[in-house]
Amino acid sequence: MDQPVTAPAAPADLDDEARLEAWERRSDIPLTVLSAAFLVVYAVQVLATRPGQPAWTALEAVLWLTWAVFVVDYVGRLVCARHRQRFVLANPVDLLIVLAPFFRFLRLLRLIAAVSVLTRVLRDDFRGRVGGYLIVTVSLVSFVAALGVFEAERDAPESSITTFGDALWWVLTTITTVGYGDRYPVTTEGRLVAAALMLAGIAVLGTVTAAIATWFLERVGDEQRAAQPTPADWTAVLTELRTLRNRVEELEATTPSERSPGR
Amino acid sequence: MDQPVTAPAAPADLDDEARLEAWERRSDIPLTVLSAAFLVVYAVQVLATRPGQPAWTALEAVLWLTWAVFVVDYVGRLVCARHRQRFVLANPVDLLIVLAPFFRFLRLLRLIAAVSVLTRVLRDDFRGRVGGYLIVTVSLVSFVAALGVFEAERDAPESSITTFGDALWWVLTTITTVGYGDRYPVTTEGRLVAAALMLAGIAVLGTVTAAIATWFLERVGDEQRAAQPTPADWTAVLTELRTLRNRVEELEATTPSERSPGR
Amino acid sequence: MDQPVTAPAAPADLDDEARLEAWERRSDIPLTVLSAAFLVVYAVQVLATRPGQPAWTALEAVLWLTWAVFVVDYVGRLVCARHRQRFVLANPVDLLIVLAPFFRFLRLLRLIAAVSVLTRVLRDDFRGRVGGYLIVTVSLVSFVAALGVFEAERDAPESSITTFGDALWWVLTTITTVGYGDRYPVTTEGRLVAAALMLAGIAVLGTVTAAIATWFLERVGDEQRAAQPTPADWTAVLTELRTLRNRVEELEATTPSERSPGR
Amino acid sequence: MDQPVTAPAAPADLDDEARLEAWERRSDIPLTVLSAAFLVVYAVQVLATRPGQPAWTALEAVLWLTWAVFVVDYVGRLVCARHRQRFVLANPVDLLIVLAPFFRFLRLLRLIAAVSVLTRVLRDDFRGRVGGYLIVTVSLVSFVAALGVFEAERDAPESSITTFGDALWWVLTTITTVGYGDRYPVTTEGRLVAAALMLAGIAVLGTVTAAIATWFLERVGDEQRAAQPTPADWTAVLTELRTLRNRVEELEATTPSERSPGR
Repeated sequence: MDQPVTAPAAPADLDDEARLEAWERRSDIPLTVLSAAFLVVYAVQVLATRPGQPAWTALEAVLWLTWAVFVVDYVGRLVCARHRQRFVLANPVDLLIVLAPFFRFLRLLRLIAAVSVLTRVLRDDFRGRVGGYLIVTVSLVSFVAALGVFEAERDAPESSITTFGDALWWVLTTITTVGYGDRYPVTTEGRLVAAALMLAGIAVLGTVTAAIATWFLERVGDEQRAAQPTPADWTAVLTELRTLRNRVEELEATTPSERSPGR
Repeated sequence: MDQPVTAPAAPADLDDEARLEAWERRSDIPLTVLSAAFLVVYAVQVLATRPGQPAWTALEAVLWLTWAVFVVDYVGRLVCARHRQRFVLANPVDLLIVLAPFFRFLRLLRLIAAVSVLTRVLRDDFRGRVGGYLIVTVSLVSFVAALGVFEAERDAPESSITTFGDALWWVLTTITTVGYGDRYPVTTEGRLVAAALMLAGIAVLGTVTAAIATWFLERVGDEQRAAQPTPADWTAVLTELRTLRNRVEELEATTPSERSPGR
Repeated sequence: MDQPVTAPAAPADLDDEARLEAWERRSDIPLTVLSAAFLVVYAVQVLATRPGQPAWTALEAVLWLTWAVFVVDYVGRLVCARHRQRFVLANPVDLLIVLAPFFRFLRLLRLIAAVSVLTRVLRDDFRGRVGGYLIVTVSLVSFVAALGVFEAERDAPESSITTFGDALWWVLTTITTVGYGDRYPVTTEGRLVAAALMLAGIAVLGTVTAAIATWFLERVGDEQRAAQPTPADWTAVLTELRTLRNRVEELEATTPSERSPGR
Repeated sequence: MDQPVTAPAAPADLDDEARLEAWERRSDIPLTVLSAAFLVVYAVQVLATRPGQPAWTALEAVLWLTWAVFVVDYVGRLVCARHRQRFVLANPVDLLIVLAPFFRFLRLLRLIAAVSVLTRVLRDDFRGRVGGYLIVTVSLVSFVAALGVFEAERDAPESSITTFGDALWWVLTTITTVGYGDRYPVTTEGRLVAAALMLAGIAVLGTVTAAIATWFLERVGDEQRAAQPTPADWTAVLTELRTLRNRVEELEATTPSERSPGR
């Protein structure tokens, strides 16, 4: 029976970025561990130390080292890639991270790097389980956003986010798009965190709605499908047709001897 | 005709948690009544008495007794369960309720217990009628949230929610994600109620949207299905095929006597 | 060919509420005109007069007369209905309107009456054109809500909605669930208008999303359907099968004369 | 095989607006360039000059010239159109732009003109790629709205939007429907920009949700389709039936000579 076959990509294309893929496969686990470590160190630095303290400086050095590893990884991937221009255009976030020291909002960019690696790992772990992925990702993004906005806002004049509890509360009112306005960022860094968080909020709202709609429509679809021919019905028809042909062929096979003169 | 059959779970698995299910079947109605009574007592306590008054203390004792019954129910189910670790992991809300006294926000956790029992009952009662379920659940959650935030906020310094009317108005602006910010909680307890309410708001928005989308798509689907083969068409084809086979078989049955020598 | 037939409702049932339907058919157009007139008079009263002025009193009398007509219509329908209890339960909004004078928020209830009649007419006019229906309904609801909140708030102490422009701006920030909080109602009447408006906002958001999703999915569905058997393919199979049966029947019809002795 | 054929529109109808279409095809690129130039000039005027400065006046003259070109285009299309009344009703935005000088909020209307031309071009460029279209359109709308609200609000008394950074931040809180209320427009012009932005926000939310829902449902649909008869199955049935008929026809062709006497 002729089954529709998805044409495989040409082998040349598949091998094309083999070196890049090999690099990424090997660097995947170390980078994930590094990202998690980065976030832990960053959280300790923001929550337990203040700029100027020796501990702050030590942790800052660790964070800079992490950034250096991200740069090494980016350069390694660029070297491995055959289509370098395409690689640069396809990985804008990674480029931003490397260029971070030349921009003003370095620290926030490093946060995006760590979060983007971790959410990619999460997406693979929770394949097909939207609920679990959503809860873990939203928790991670919320915690990191609270750290980021707290660092940016706590010493700003006229700031309304001065404790980590305030930062968590502000994250909640923002990601749900409620936005009371009792707390809001006043620095540019804080507002960039807010922008990322609002976009995350829209994505969360959209995903929740879409998941509920899919669930509703699957139930409706199940009822419709119950009333429609199943693959088993289909097999029954094909079997019936083949049996019928066999009978007719047998019938033909027995008659020629008698009928050949009639031709 | 070979119908596709959903393989039944192995009998061993079905019996596995038979004792747990028997316990839950028997405790279902008493627990529902208890949850409803809990909410009524809680509402009377919050709306009509103040901490320190004898009536408040008496109602508080009743609420503690209710909590004790929830603990007895949890322990009973745990004893009945064969896979105890799985049971503990599958019922995190129930565990939280039992551990409530060891946490600071006991009273709120007990509210969650009562609401979660009642919404489960509602889900069974409104099976398939999304509109009715939504209206009753949202009303229940809104009323309980207003009680919870009113109790947490009314005596807090700098609080903006000081009457039950304010609490109801705040619940409305929060669950619809409008969030004017004229009223907002300032205590941790109040903010936890707000968090639950915002998540409820997102779920409500998602459900309303999904219900409307399903309704739209069903109408589109009805038009498409009208142009597609119906189960009756299918039956017609199968009947036609069987008739045909019978005729050919009759034809064969009548010929062998004449044709056997030709074989 | 056996077509699935939707069983028609029993004639007894159809005639059941024939008198009610006749009344509603005859009262439909006058009531629509009356509702529109009510809203115009109400708008003039709110925007151009103040309580205590003679013009205000005159317009108030007109509005009361309109209410009386709504009551007459309700009583008429109740008398015509055969299942009176069911009629009362199925038309809760209409009952509220009739009982309005016994409640405190009479004026708002009359607004709901007028709007609910007009949106029903609009639904019939825009059957299938979601966009047009949405624009006209949202405009109507917004204008009426602005009138209602303006009347309720303009003389309230500490009110932030003191001009009709403010009221329109507040309606916009509320129905889109943005909710800046620069303007918000402080009276119970105003907050009831806000509640209706927020629910309308959620419905609008849901409808817009659902309409876009339906449009997306229809496009996806069109592509899928192009690759699936069409009703014409189906007809081809049935024609083929019938032709085949006719041939076999002819074959049988010609043989019995020769073969009957072989039986 | 009888394929369902979509009836082509009558040729008369197709030629009907041939002159209008020819005009629009020729004016498409110049108008797009003009719109882009208009926005650049407007941005320079708002961000770098102040009313009363010579540069402001010079740029204002350029903007008026652009408006004149839009009017010429509108008149040209009206002259080309055969059904003029229908054309006027089908292009309300274009009419508003032409009538702009007679309204008070001229400048905002010209913005709408430029944005509406550019988003139409974008829609054609991003056909089928919802993500890309959304990002570019939302960026364009946000930037133009920030310019518009900044111009309207910066000199208004009690205004809270006094720098372009504030305007961008306000656009973000509005289009995501968060609405903190730390910044909000107080002029009528600014509020009209806000209205456009809120509607854009609802459309964005709806599109994001719909895109995610479509993606979910396509994945669900793929699984269902895998379990359903494919077009190849269908072809197999038809082939089987035709073979069967051929055999029966051959059978018939060989028998008449013997059987004709039996008729």
